[in-house]
Amino acid sequence: MQKNSYHSNVDPARAGFVYLVGAGPGDPGLLTLRGLECLQRAEVVVFDRLASSDLLAFAPQASLIDVGKESGHHAIPQEQINAILVAQASSGKVVTRLKGGDPFVFGRGGEEALALVKAGIPFEIVPGVTSAIAAPAYAGIPVTQRGMACSVAFITGHNAGNKPVELNWQALAHGIDTLVFLMGVQNLAHIVAELLEAGKAPDTPVALVEQGTLPMQKVVTGTLATIVEKAREIKPPAIIVAGKVVALHHHLEWFKPLREGNSVHEDGMNQK
Amino acid sequence: MQKNSYHSNVDPARAGFVYLVGAGPGDPGLLTLRGLECLQRAEVVVFDRLASSDLLAFAPQASLIDVGKESGHHAIPQEQINAILVAQASSGKVVTRLKGGDPFVFGRGGEEALALVKAGIPFEIVPGVTSAIAAPAYAGIPVTQRGMACSVAFITGHNAGNKPVELNWQALAHGIDTLVFLMGVQNLAHIVAELLEAGKAPDTPVALVEQGTLPMQKVVTGTLATIVEKAREIKPPAIIVAGKVVALHHHLEWFKPLREGNSVHEDGMNQK
Repeated sequence: MQKNSYHSNVDPARAGFVYLVGAGPGDPGLLTLRGLECLQRAEVVVFDRLASSDLLAFAPQASLIDVGKESGHHAIPQEQINAILVAQASSGKVVTRLKGGDPFVFGRGGEEALALVKAGIPFEIVPGVTSAIAAPAYAGIPVTQRGMACSVAFITGHNAGNKPVELNWQALAHGIDTLVFLMGVQNLAHIVAELLEAGKAPDTPVALVEQGTLPMQKVVTGTLATIVEKAREIKPPAIIVAGKVVALHHHLEWFKPLREGNSVHEDGMNQK
Repeated sequence: MQKNSYHSNVDPARAGFVYLVGAGPGDPGLLTLRGLECLQRAEVVVFDRLASSDLLAFAPQASLIDVGKESGHHAIPQEQINAILVAQASSGKVVTRLKGGDPFVFGRGGEEALALVKAGIPFEIVPGVTSAIAAPAYAGIPVTQRGMACSVAFITGHNAGNKPVELNWQALAHGIDTLVFLMGVQNLAHIVAELLEAGKAPDTPVALVEQGTLPMQKVVTGTLATIVEKAREIKPPAIIVAGKVVALHHHLEWFKPLREGNSVHEDGMNQK
């Protein structure tokens, strides 16, 4: 692949180097070619629970460091993750930091990159396919569509303290066509209440996509008026999509998850 | 790669099939593994100017159909592109429709998918890395950052008729932390005027990224007050990023474009 990359002039073997790599939304086929290269080159892979374990198989030569936020029920503070990256690279290692989705979309990649700059460690950002786009796509929902949605926003559903973030709900309700909330399922009732309070139409279509792009993907659709009740069976990680484009799900659904007994995907509209 | 994909149960050889593939933002290393598979399997590749020509080398076996909007200065209407996809797949071919960025982010992938549904042709969506995220990333700008930006919106800068779209500028100016306008450079003066009129601070940092992720990438930064004047050297395709995160460009810039005489990227802050 090297000849197909514009980065081949980098010689990471000469010194420590960090690749901040977006692992994509879960389906390992959505890793990028550059991401694959970075895994194959890595001496150390620092990963978390949002990065598919299937991808680690691409780096059998590397030491693996799990900084998953849920490991052992202890959250590893971001500062400690930054310190691990700096320490590994400072010892001359080629480090691939594998992050779910895209490193710069609620992935704290910016914080890690700033820590590397401060330590004088060279790095490269390898963007990834974000679940904010891919999970809806695998549910047959285009986040933009001519005549329906010429704007889309990605919003984080909670902040560092796991409390709902302060948002301008009036603006979100009336200024953006498609709203995608990440990490928001635990705050779904709050998000829905705020949007309704701000005057968003109760019949606005809403979809929840759990484990988007994975064989266990599950989709629940409803409206702002009904989704909280319908969402009881949805567990994190899941994303929330609200807007007219959600209605296209019933026409464009194409992905057949492998989950047994999953009746949500049985209509198979694209095979009519 | 087949064992690493959850789609290996699809047997497109039995009938016509269309892969709607996001080619990524330009750097061929940002194609996905699944996108590569789809190119390698294709009997026909339907592509446009936003898909890197380097990627066509992955499909030497395929017939190529150029539906580039600029070919011969005639725009090929979307309806005709839809008809080409339907006709090729109906004749039993495996068709890969290669689209710049992500097919569902201002890529008209939804329209093409609806045409396939109507014609009874099975299809798969292969999300791609969108330039709305990757072009800023290659300019050292994370579109989200804890404490700076917990929301980001992608907005199209013009509609089908190439006129500025009707947008809720108040909401955009005050309700979303990071604004990314695609296909908006020709309307830059209009976009800036509307944001200022809506009360967005004149010192809001703004970046323009031309040919993002490519060797010819060019970045110009300024503020809402200065960017129109500074933008004279920027040509489409380019994206506009506005928000506090743009200031991180001066710290996180890591990508060294190959363009000769391009002084914009000479400071190399990450190598201090």
